[in-house]
Amino acid sequence: MKLATLKDGTRDGRLVVVSRDLTRAVAVPSIAPTLLDAVERWDEVEQLLRAVAEGLEAGPVAGEAPFDAEQAAAPLPRTWQWIDGSVFVNHGRLMAAALHPDKENDYSVPLVYQGASDDFLGPRDDVVLPFEEHGIDFEGEIAIVVDRVPMGTPTTAAESHIKLLMLVNDVSLRGLLRRELGTGFGFVTAKPSSAFSPVAVTPDELADAWHDAKVHRPLHVEWNGERFGDPNGTEMSFDFTQLIAHLAQTRNLSAGTVIGSGTVSNEDRAAGSACIAERRAIELLDEGAPRTPFMSFGDTVRIEMLDADGSSIFGAIDQKIVRLGG
Amino acid sequence: MKLATLKDGTRDGRLVVVSRDLTRAVAVPSIAPTLLDAVERWDEVEQLLRAVAEGLEAGPVAGEAPFDAEQAAAPLPRTWQWIDGSVFVNHGRLMAAALHPDKENDYSVPLVYQGASDDFLGPRDDVVLPFEEHGIDFEGEIAIVVDRVPMGTPTTAAESHIKLLMLVNDVSLRGLLRRELGTGFGFVTAKPSSAFSPVAVTPDELADAWHDAKVHRPLHVEWNGERFGDPNGTEMSFDFTQLIAHLAQTRNLSAGTVIGSGTVSNEDRAAGSACIAERRAIELLDEGAPRTPFMSFGDTVRIEMLDADGSSIFGAIDQKIVRLGG
Repeated sequence: MKLATLKDGTRDGRLVVVSRDLTRAVAVPSIAPTLLDAVERWDEVEQLLRAVAEGLEAGPVAGEAPFDAEQAAAPLPRTWQWIDGSVFVNHGRLMAAALHPDKENDYSVPLVYQGASDDFLGPRDDVVLPFEEHGIDFEGEIAIVVDRVPMGTPTTAAESHIKLLMLVNDVSLRGLLRRELGTGFGFVTAKPSSAFSPVAVTPDELADAWHDAKVHRPLHVEWNGERFGDPNGTEMSFDFTQLIAHLAQTRNLSAGTVIGSGTVSNEDRAAGSACIAERRAIELLDEGAPRTPFMSFGDTVRIEMLDADGSSIFGAIDQKIVRLGG
Repeated sequence: MKLATLKDGTRDGRLVVVSRDLTRAVAVPSIAPTLLDAVERWDEVEQLLRAVAEGLEAGPVAGEAPFDAEQAAAPLPRTWQWIDGSVFVNHGRLMAAALHPDKENDYSVPLVYQGASDDFLGPRDDVVLPFEEHGIDFEGEIAIVVDRVPMGTPTTAAESHIKLLMLVNDVSLRGLLRRELGTGFGFVTAKPSSAFSPVAVTPDELADAWHDAKVHRPLHVEWNGERFGDPNGTEMSFDFTQLIAHLAQTRNLSAGTVIGSGTVSNEDRAAGSACIAERRAIELLDEGAPRTPFMSFGDTVRIEMLDADGSSIFGAIDQKIVRLGG
């Protein structure tokens, strides 16, 4: 099942069920007006939503309309919590080697930060920012949406809480990030609003590509229309159940909590990167200095994942960087 | 005007207007069902709510009931964003001197971290946690609630966004905090659910004690019924307008965003402390080792602020620490 949120002038938008091929959608106000509401009542609404999705696959349904990713908000335009991991250890090692080669990192515990969930961007929304000098970067990631996870939930009981998957562009401001990393308090100004894929999908939509609580497909990242990387989700050093159990150690996670994987990254350098900072780290390590600049106003980034047949699973994030007030 | 949220079985609770002396309350469903809704439509509802508050002060009103802080949720039981500062530089200097005397801190920029806003505790809710060994601590703080703050809002335009003030118990797990501080990614497991005062108040309720976007009153903190400290809010090294402008540099802040001051702390040692970690830092610096332990299951903490006449402004946070599943 694929779900999206259409912009309708409200902060939470209007939930629609989307056809597998991402061409058709139908609103389901009698089941749930918004995706946040649906996630909060998942056990009640899941079968009803799945019945609508099956109807859409079977043929035309009353009230359906073409699905236009340009009209889509983030599947959850805002939610109660966004926690992003950084659990592709290859990315962590490259960044650490470039940024602080003297410091030993502990890779035995998932690296996570609390993000801002109040103002997510849609897949085609401009990324509006004040200064190029902040070092504007994209990060291609995979994220899950969970229902309520009680404190103390172990890894073995975590997978059933994973209700939906999405792609993320975790916009990052590298020029602000190093100072905030240095405080130890984590990222606030360095992490402006994140953007999400046009649709959120239930794990079964990934078929064989979803197992061991990881997404085993490459994530295609393009910058200004050119391939930047297509690392595979398979190399997460902690899977999503381990992330959930880590986060729920000392608190409940509310329904609608979104948990990200961090920048997708592979050991094989041929896979390229899902963020500029990682490519710059590789350049620094290999060539002595980074030579790829960060993004300029007017630049675009596209993030997409295809299934084994070459069809888009989540639709594409495709955004332009725009100057605030420009 | 004083506002509270009564528990009614829903996640957002029921908004009530509370009398200045905290003894009487009346629900206002025709104005706004929840405080989150009211904050999101503040310009529409403020005068209507103030009229109810004035009516309550004038005498009995239809539908009023005694206000019982035991029945109160956090004024915002959940909201879209919680960002906590640490802008009492005295606290920062003490903690730094004790934790990492070799590292130079930058006090020229407000220190802030992104917190979890999905599951706040009410003022009398038990603090349920899995292990005493995590080093359970309280932190007495002051917080503001803002309406929508557009990206790029300067300090000079920030004060009008401050709609409400609350007290906070920012529960902290010191045994987990040091590792998370070391990652640079900030606090997740080390910061379980925070608790808030029974009522949120508009700044005018503080009269002369609110100026220069700071609260100039002592915060009374008791541990197991004994005075622990009563530091004054006046020594914030950045005021709330500076915090807002810092946070809004690279993103919009949604209506309902809660921003905390961090542990209230004064240079005068006679003021005591608003968290155990600070007292332990002082002991380490003065006596060579901390001797005050962290909290045990069954311990209580009380956080309150009185006006010049000795009346409680926000009501008291008064919580017991309880073992998960105990």
